[in-house]
Amino acid sequence: MKVYLAGPEVFLPNARAVLDKKIEMTRRYGFTPVSPGDLEIPQTETRKARGLAISAVDERLMSSADFIIANLTPFRGIAADVGTAYELGFMRARGCPAYAFTNTARDHFVRVRDYYDGVIVKDDQGHARGPDGLAVEDFDMIDNLMLHGGVEASGGVVVVREVAPERLFLDLGAFEECLTLAASRLLGR
Amino acid sequence: MKVYLAGPEVFLPNARAVLDKKIEMTRRYGFTPVSPGDLEIPQTETRKARGLAISAVDERLMSSADFIIANLTPFRGIAADVGTAYELGFMRARGCPAYAFTNTARDHFVRVRDYYDGVIVKDDQGHARGPDGLAVEDFDMIDNLMLHGGVEASGGVVVVREVAPERLFLDLGAFEECLTLAASRLLGR
Repeated sequence: MKVYLAGPEVFLPNARAVLDKKIEMTRRYGFTPVSPGDLEIPQTETRKARGLAISAVDERLMSSADFIIANLTPFRGIAADVGTAYELGFMRARGCPAYAFTNTARDHFVRVRDYYDGVIVKDDQGHARGPDGLAVEDFDMIDNLMLHGGVEASGGVVVVREVAPERLFLDLGAFEECLTLAASRLLGR
Repeated sequence: MKVYLAGPEVFLPNARAVLDKKIEMTRRYGFTPVSPGDLEIPQTETRKARGLAISAVDERLMSSADFIIANLTPFRGIAADVGTAYELGFMRARGCPAYAFTNTARDHFVRVRDYYDGVIVKDDQGHARGPDGLAVEDFDMIDNLMLHGGVEASGGVVVVREVAPERLFLDLGAFEECLTLAASRLLGR
């Protein structure tokens, strides 16, 4: 079975080393990994064309995969990397099991509350809102309900770990737990 | 043809009014709109169960739709709403045309540069990175390349407008341009 390894690791200074480690672990659990960066990107004339070429390659890799493990650890802000969110939705629509992990135990509500410096008010209907009036989701979920909901509806699992801040995108314990669960459910191991 | 109207408008204090306006405009262009909030959410015991129920309803609505118009205006940070990104990927995997708009002309690179207070460095290979070492995409795109790339690969269009800050989630000019383009391409109008 092929698994698409989604996450913001591609942006790390040591992206290749981290991706190679994830690939090696994935093979050890009996799966065939595919991940962004696997394929050569064709030469292009413009930056825009290069972006489109990478997108096309990643979509091709996803379309060849049987399931996804997505790193939803908040990236440059309070939410998951939007590219990873896109990929999670993509694989969910294909009917694939989706596993996800996050390396922070501070859930969506807590992160948004911190974003508003703790100022959360209740509106007339009792819904939580920020001082800007925007509704604040409070569903005991790690991120926007579409992400968390999509993973659970797919038959996958959301794994939550708290890691040291400097290990936020390097700690692969939660990723390995996804592999363990997927091997048990999908390969019967 | 049914269109799924995705975007962070659901979080606005006047969400119902804004969604109703989008629905009315969509009908005027000859499409049948579906949008989050259309269906009754079943009663649930826990917050988590309610989140899952909303996710299930929204996925059902998407699965009934022929294409998507996604509002990718940055939400609570420098990137699009992750729920909307998920939905864009979902519809793209279903082979549906995807139209997107953003109400800021400050593209992904500019927003990330501002996030790093203008401190962008080049690494050994000439790639732009933030002071934290994370790579900065610079592809003349409105957001992460998977989002922008997915829209263009689907046959859709990314519409960019600059609006007054207080109209960031209220101005529907770019949304209407998506409707105009979709009506021309999909309905031959």
